[in-house]
Amino acid sequence: MTRGLFITLEGGDGSGKSTQAELLREWLTGEGRTVVRTREPGGTEVGVEIRELVLHHRGDISPRAEALLYAADRAHHVATLVRPALTRGEVVVQDRYLDSSVAYQGAGRVLDPGEVRRLSDWAAEGLLPDLTVLLDLDSAAARARLDVARTRYDRLEAEASAFHDRVRGAYLDLAAAEPDRFLVIDATRPVEEIAAAIRERVRGLL
Amino acid sequence: MTRGLFITLEGGDGSGKSTQAELLREWLTGEGRTVVRTREPGGTEVGVEIRELVLHHRGDISPRAEALLYAADRAHHVATLVRPALTRGEVVVQDRYLDSSVAYQGAGRVLDPGEVRRLSDWAAEGLLPDLTVLLDLDSAAARARLDVARTRYDRLEAEASAFHDRVRGAYLDLAAAEPDRFLVIDATRPVEEIAAAIRERVRGLL
Repeated sequence: MTRGLFITLEGGDGSGKSTQAELLREWLTGEGRTVVRTREPGGTEVGVEIRELVLHHRGDISPRAEALLYAADRAHHVATLVRPALTRGEVVVQDRYLDSSVAYQGAGRVLDPGEVRRLSDWAAEGLLPDLTVLLDLDSAAARARLDVARTRYDRLEAEASAFHDRVRGAYLDLAAAEPDRFLVIDATRPVEEIAAAIRERVRGLL
Repeated sequence: MTRGLFITLEGGDGSGKSTQAELLREWLTGEGRTVVRTREPGGTEVGVEIRELVLHHRGDISPRAEALLYAADRAHHVATLVRPALTRGEVVVQDRYLDSSVAYQGAGRVLDPGEVRRLSDWAAEGLLPDLTVLLDLDSAAARARLDVARTRYDRLEAEASAFHDRVRGAYLDLAAAEPDRFLVIDATRPVEEIAAAIRERVRGLL
């Protein structure tokens, strides 16, 4: 069986995932590889509808229902897009995958992260990335990037900062548990340096 | 904690679930009980949207995604409607619940029914009905009810009949495994006789 390469990018909002995914796609294409650039949630038509439902439904959705909806998005995305591309020998470059589910749920402290991981594994029939790039950004730097114009630092921002710290901690724990799969990069480094570090690691996998 | 009563009705299409649910609701109301009459899928607003997505999306939805969407519907329905009603001491009378998921998946032979059961249990945080009424109908009787006008018996109908037999067999296996929870009734009996048998069993639970 021809087997492609499955690369995911993880990290908080503002950590530079989209920028690095695009640079990686350009480089891989130049190397003659066929690249599928995608994301979760919302990487398929069904996924877009699920994402709309989760984000724009009036009133709350129960935590388990929300986790199951994201898992449904993943199941469909993997079955209809990611796995077929890998079987064709292509490279899939994807923003967010199971580590997002686990890190954000762990940080939210509502559902057990281990259960969320098992749910995700069932949805994806156990498909793991060959490489996961974690763009690591501390909360002060993240705040500075997302919020350069504001000077007030109120209670909501303090909460947002504490949440970001928990997400970051959860990501770093995941990376420590699977060092072979993860490449952790300081997201405050210059864009080109980060891109070079990612290329170096990917080159070894091609 | 005040604890209500959770009653589900199961069986193939045309087995009389809605009729019996309505008769049961009327009787319980006459007995002075507050009754919540509901169904899955689609018993909440979120559930209606999920049901629309599953039934009317163009193109196939992957089997795991479909199972996860139904589980999401269940999670939200149980968390926001069924459990609160039971906590208030009310009686919930519901068309279809986890046994439908397991029996239909088992009959469809795509996903493992045990996995579907575990998914459903996670979604519903283990909530089981106090009583499940299985309206049992063999495929010849079901066909006669649903299809009285047609005389041709073609390949599609033969397949539909074989599928119905597998659903029925799966339901009967579930009932045999949990005899205390299930009341199995021959759905070809007169409507009033069936209603009386259900009332007798429910009276013992009130």
